[in-house]
Amino acid sequence: MASRLLRSSYSGSLRAVSTASTVRPAAVSAVHQFSNRRQFTASSSKMASSFYKDWEPEGPTVKTEIPGPKAKEAIKELDEVFDTRSLNMLTDYHKSVGNYIADPDGNVLLDVYAQIASIPIGYNNPVLQDAARSSDMVNSIINRPALGNFPPTDWASVLKTGILKVAPKGLNQVFTAMAGSDANETAYKAAFMWRRQKERGGPQVEFTAEEMESAMINQSPGASSLSILSFKSAFHGRLFGSLSTTRSKPIHKLDIPAFDWPQATFPLLKYPLEEHAEENAAAEQAALDEVEHLIKNYHIPPAAVIIEPIQSEGGDNHASPAFFRGLRAITKKHGVLLIVDEVQTGVGATGKFWAHEHWDLQDPPDMVTFSKKAQTAGYYFGNPELRPNKPYRQFNTWMGDPARALLFKAIIGEIERLGLVEHTARVGDYLYGKLEGLAQKYPGQFANLRGKGQGTFIAFDNPRRDEFLARAKKFGVNIGGSGQSAVRLRPMLIFEEKHADILVDALEKIVKSFQ
Amino acid sequence: MASRLLRSSYSGSLRAVSTASTVRPAAVSAVHQFSNRRQFTASSSKMASSFYKDWEPEGPTVKTEIPGPKAKEAIKELDEVFDTRSLNMLTDYHKSVGNYIADPDGNVLLDVYAQIASIPIGYNNPVLQDAARSSDMVNSIINRPALGNFPPTDWASVLKTGILKVAPKGLNQVFTAMAGSDANETAYKAAFMWRRQKERGGPQVEFTAEEMESAMINQSPGASSLSILSFKSAFHGRLFGSLSTTRSKPIHKLDIPAFDWPQATFPLLKYPLEEHAEENAAAEQAALDEVEHLIKNYHIPPAAVIIEPIQSEGGDNHASPAFFRGLRAITKKHGVLLIVDEVQTGVGATGKFWAHEHWDLQDPPDMVTFSKKAQTAGYYFGNPELRPNKPYRQFNTWMGDPARALLFKAIIGEIERLGLVEHTARVGDYLYGKLEGLAQKYPGQFANLRGKGQGTFIAFDNPRRDEFLARAKKFGVNIGGSGQSAVRLRPMLIFEEKHADILVDALEKIVKSFQ
Repeated sequence: MASRLLRSSYSGSLRAVSTASTVRPAAVSAVHQFSNRRQFTASSSKMASSFYKDWEPEGPTVKTEIPGPKAKEAIKELDEVFDTRSLNMLTDYHKSVGNYIADPDGNVLLDVYAQIASIPIGYNNPVLQDAARSSDMVNSIINRPALGNFPPTDWASVLKTGILKVAPKGLNQVFTAMAGSDANETAYKAAFMWRRQKERGGPQVEFTAEEMESAMINQSPGASSLSILSFKSAFHGRLFGSLSTTRSKPIHKLDIPAFDWPQATFPLLKYPLEEHAEENAAAEQAALDEVEHLIKNYHIPPAAVIIEPIQSEGGDNHASPAFFRGLRAITKKHGVLLIVDEVQTGVGATGKFWAHEHWDLQDPPDMVTFSKKAQTAGYYFGNPELRPNKPYRQFNTWMGDPARALLFKAIIGEIERLGLVEHTARVGDYLYGKLEGLAQKYPGQFANLRGKGQGTFIAFDNPRRDEFLARAKKFGVNIGGSGQSAVRLRPMLIFEEKHADILVDALEKIVKSFQ
Repeated sequence: MASRLLRSSYSGSLRAVSTASTVRPAAVSAVHQFSNRRQFTASSSKMASSFYKDWEPEGPTVKTEIPGPKAKEAIKELDEVFDTRSLNMLTDYHKSVGNYIADPDGNVLLDVYAQIASIPIGYNNPVLQDAARSSDMVNSIINRPALGNFPPTDWASVLKTGILKVAPKGLNQVFTAMAGSDANETAYKAAFMWRRQKERGGPQVEFTAEEMESAMINQSPGASSLSILSFKSAFHGRLFGSLSTTRSKPIHKLDIPAFDWPQATFPLLKYPLEEHAEENAAAEQAALDEVEHLIKNYHIPPAAVIIEPIQSEGGDNHASPAFFRGLRAITKKHGVLLIVDEVQTGVGATGKFWAHEHWDLQDPPDMVTFSKKAQTAGYYFGNPELRPNKPYRQFNTWMGDPARALLFKAIIGEIERLGLVEHTARVGDYLYGKLEGLAQKYPGQFANLRGKGQGTFIAFDNPRRDEFLARAKKFGVNIGGSGQSAVRLRPMLIFEEKHADILVDALEKIVKSFQ
């Protein structure tokens, strides 16, 4: 099937999947006009109006194998200077548009991987083009500030109308960073400083000479003997502190020195959830008990617990709101901070702006980290005690990037204007329903379907996962995996019912091609 | 004096220092015309032509105390959401131009701190404005790739005509990163993987089950028991791995868990160098002996030694080329990698593109890290064995930022077109000569003057350093400090003899005001 498709596709632009009926969401019926701004080269005859006028092609186009001849040549050249062994698809970003990713050989795929879950509102979004061309953006690009020393005059305004406009409930402060890893690590630093300050007796208590001397030789008490507790199969980044909390795969960790920090079991839920309610609740309680045990007994006490709302790299592992409420209660009880890593789950993909809004927490997390779809990074906090007691304790040269903060502001504007969080919740339900149909029709091929009610943040397991992902490209879709066997769907926030239809059609073709 | 200056300055735009005679460097006599691109609001009557037409004011303007009333109000607002205790000067980046930094109260200072040594070729550089407005830049801003998986079609070209065009001799590969800290940490990771691979017997030897299992619980052998050796008063960043090699000040390290990694003594040279040749040579030999001793005996063996060509945050500590050649020889002898941290010294400021070019090394460093003036970050390497033996070992979502890589390419273009490295070598000599004069005239005020022959990378110690820096603003100059008592000069690469005259004049006024 795949080879036949590829053969015929050389003779012209073949639609790899049938053109789906266009289901226009009501929330976005006010189409915005953007003229004189187009960089897309896909011919307009293939376009169908949607969130923006003359925006996307009607469906994918598969013209060659991927990589095709042009890509192969470019990859060979790139490999001379840059490691290409993890290369998935050489990308033509000038030709990519909306939900569609293009390559140099003219292939255009529906992209539900989105640069590892990080493109928020489509390639070459015209509103972001405007933002990128603004004089403020140009200024931010060429006059990069050392934010802690020389913040721009309008930095408060950029924060308040951007990053902080969408701050999680209860958290009204931000420390800006560069990416998910350093967002988490600076949050860890804040946690360690907070905890030691408490142990010392408050912000006014000065450091001892012994602390200052021992810190300089990396020894306690100056370098604290404290830890961050994370969960098995968690992913929190790959620098030395964050990697010590990452427990995804050996290949991520091998040979790198690590801190002797504790890990608790992440509850492994069984699906369908409604058939395993009791078992799953027991698994969650056992995990909570283990967390409490480690907090009380681990030989290097945790200053904080970090957790993803949905373990993403680890295989799309979910837990119930009750589990997370329990975790908040235990950490609160023992004076341990709770850091919620929303690097992958944040900014709308789960049908809430922040995934932890699904939990209905009584007390907010102490810190929430973000990156990816925000296109900038950092951690939110609310407790003023999380500001270190002296300046320059939490500091670095750039402390983030105002250019990327401006981009997030523009992204937030579009999310609000188009109602993309509610939209994603609805499209996610639509997609989940279709996938349930496929799961029934093809037993074992869409195993452990999960993410119901979590927007488009949906995954399932397939026994031939790697081949599944490879074949997806042949059927016009770019999909990523996670964990050992999960196919993870990470559409952008502009993913509509019509795209869901194209996706579901392609998924069915993949499993049929296995038969 | 200062108060008189401030009083009179309210009555109009007062030149805080006399207008220096314009010494036009021959290398830049071909003035480029840039029309229709100006965002500068300083009136053109104050402009004097230089590298670019109608570019900079003729000198600083001090209108108010700094912070002035407008800045104070904005800082108060900012402090509600962002820690402002390390704030040095709220900055109006729209009004800053060339070597001059502006604030919201109309103060315009000659900036020889340059966002902690990171602005390369001036605020609002017109050529960078063009680069920032290009369609490639807009595309890079709004379509941020996961570079390891989905590199842009032209990524090889962007690297070869940008970052790699200025690669240090012998190093033709790059791993791109976000900032200095993660550039260093990814270099450390490469070092650990390289070392363990050698110990294992080569790239083809598979990990053992024990390694894979122990790595997941942060224990050896999977998490290696290896270290990075750094030097006392070194600064290599503030994330957990880099901070374990940073030895600048307790405030940078207190309360943060650290790896038990070794430090060697950085030779403390006495000035003037020519009067202490023998002593200094002995100090350097002692430091080299200590490095060798630690390499051979430290209980957690170093996989690499990291060193700054000039310790910057640590107080502008220099060592001789012979010392660095000795370090290269010792590391080579013991199979330990040498990482040169050029985050602050790189990109021209020392009168060579890379400061380690001053050393005349027989064998290049194994890795060279960069950030700051490059406006992007990463590490260079040459040895193919430093590419990990499997994909995804050195990987993260963004792996740098193509937008910032494009900016570096434009910066490199201007550096080459205008001959700014040679220019900086010459202006540095000019400035150093003037400072020698001040040092003679004001004994003890410009102590341990250092950086001769190192471009404009010059520093001296002042007994009232903090007050010295504070007063500098009153006399129209923005200067930074480092270490305990150093005044560090970090002009941009477009700093000319005329700016040196303004700076020297202000420095003299500062010390006179102390008398």
